[in-house]
Amino acid sequence: MADSIERLPVRRITREGGKNIRDTVTRELPLTIIFNNRELVTLLCSPVDLRYLAIGFLTSGGLIGHRDEIKGILADDSRGVVRVETGDGKDPDAGLLTKRLITSGCGKGTAFYNVVDVKNRTVMKSDFSISPSDVFTLVREFQNRSQLFKSTGGVHSAALCDAGNILVFNEDIGRHNALDKVFGECLWEDIPTADRLIVTSGRVSSEILLKVARRDIPVLVSRSAPTDLGIKLANDLGVTLVGFVRGERMNVYSHERRITA
Amino acid sequence: MADSIERLPVRRITREGGKNIRDTVTRELPLTIIFNNRELVTLLCSPVDLRYLAIGFLTSGGLIGHRDEIKGILADDSRGVVRVETGDGKDPDAGLLTKRLITSGCGKGTAFYNVVDVKNRTVMKSDFSISPSDVFTLVREFQNRSQLFKSTGGVHSAALCDAGNILVFNEDIGRHNALDKVFGECLWEDIPTADRLIVTSGRVSSEILLKVARRDIPVLVSRSAPTDLGIKLANDLGVTLVGFVRGERMNVYSHERRITA
Repeated sequence: MADSIERLPVRRITREGGKNIRDTVTRELPLTIIFNNRELVTLLCSPVDLRYLAIGFLTSGGLIGHRDEIKGILADDSRGVVRVETGDGKDPDAGLLTKRLITSGCGKGTAFYNVVDVKNRTVMKSDFSISPSDVFTLVREFQNRSQLFKSTGGVHSAALCDAGNILVFNEDIGRHNALDKVFGECLWEDIPTADRLIVTSGRVSSEILLKVARRDIPVLVSRSAPTDLGIKLANDLGVTLVGFVRGERMNVYSHERRITA
Repeated sequence: MADSIERLPVRRITREGGKNIRDTVTRELPLTIIFNNRELVTLLCSPVDLRYLAIGFLTSGGLIGHRDEIKGILADDSRGVVRVETGDGKDPDAGLLTKRLITSGCGKGTAFYNVVDVKNRTVMKSDFSISPSDVFTLVREFQNRSQLFKSTGGVHSAALCDAGNILVFNEDIGRHNALDKVFGECLWEDIPTADRLIVTSGRVSSEILLKVARRDIPVLVSRSAPTDLGIKLANDLGVTLVGFVRGERMNVYSHERRITA
């Protein structure tokens, strides 16, 4: 946490005039991920848990499926580099990363997610369920944990939870990074994700929904708004999507059977 | 605007129980940009002003510098494809896009922006200035314009302004896209950007700051937080960075001489 923020000089201006203060600012670091000796990507992120972020990014990108595949990992936090070796010499182009940035399809809108991600997936059948009051309690606790956001207003949070507890929690200036840090920790620490739920502070676009569905997580809860494509994918893939959880109200956009009184 | 949102069935749950309603949801479209007959990228965006978004993206990526370079542009809004031809057969790899995603540097943090973007830039010298009360008024008007955000909670806004007026305004589910739409419209409609300011709803990371500096815009105003790297770049490049404008207060992080009483 200490590494994620710093205090910088700021000129605070109000109707009464200006004064020089020091204010808390969130830090941003370029993190380069080197996969099997090839530079894969540079992410802009909060400089904490870089190892988890790298693993989560590679997992979300389809390059790593299990902890055992990682033969070596070296995180140089000060230089912002994480090297990951899989031992099998796998080519980064084998994953979803390239395809997701540069589609190989005909350019038809829906082809983007259909072809690449959705076609081979079955609909999630998990019987996991959670009560509305447990959702409200979890999100309240989630809010309390989001200290960095409170002090700087500049980050997103994500958490893996069961019906009663936050199990894994992380923060980042990017909502994708926050989620990838959670997934990276789950993979590295052998924490199961099936029959659990994800809470996120960020809006749910199609990419976020796909990331969660790919981990077989049946319920995704957001404090913010989903997009129509996020909702459509949630319906198609069997994910219960909850949005706009504020105090004691929420919107359920899909598969509401898992939200039970 | 009508194309950007739709009404979908939602289960609204409160302490009193649940009811089925229809709620406004923001739309998300995958937009594929084809540059000189090569598929360049697929962006997830709000399905409005795709032409401006494509042009702005290419401008921010260093592939287009002036309207005259565009020999042909074809936007297929329903399929989510924009084709842009420059006539000179320029290779997409010539721009900053590849370099910004995959750094060629040694992995050292600061190399990311130094080498690629900053080294060849001179410090901005613009004498443009604006009073605090004009900033407050502009941001209030900016907020009023952000109708889509108000109704769905799911989008970012960006605007080009002079000291008294909003000149170009756009919205998108992505804060980068919203800004690129503004820059795309400026380039396509021949609207000057020098000695003007940008207002954005989103946080100011290094990439946003660079985008604005590259257009020689001396003042960047955000309703949200900047990162430390955004502030550092603003200092180095001579950009006046204002954040956390809420009501009648704001923080000035760099080059405060342009905010004059």
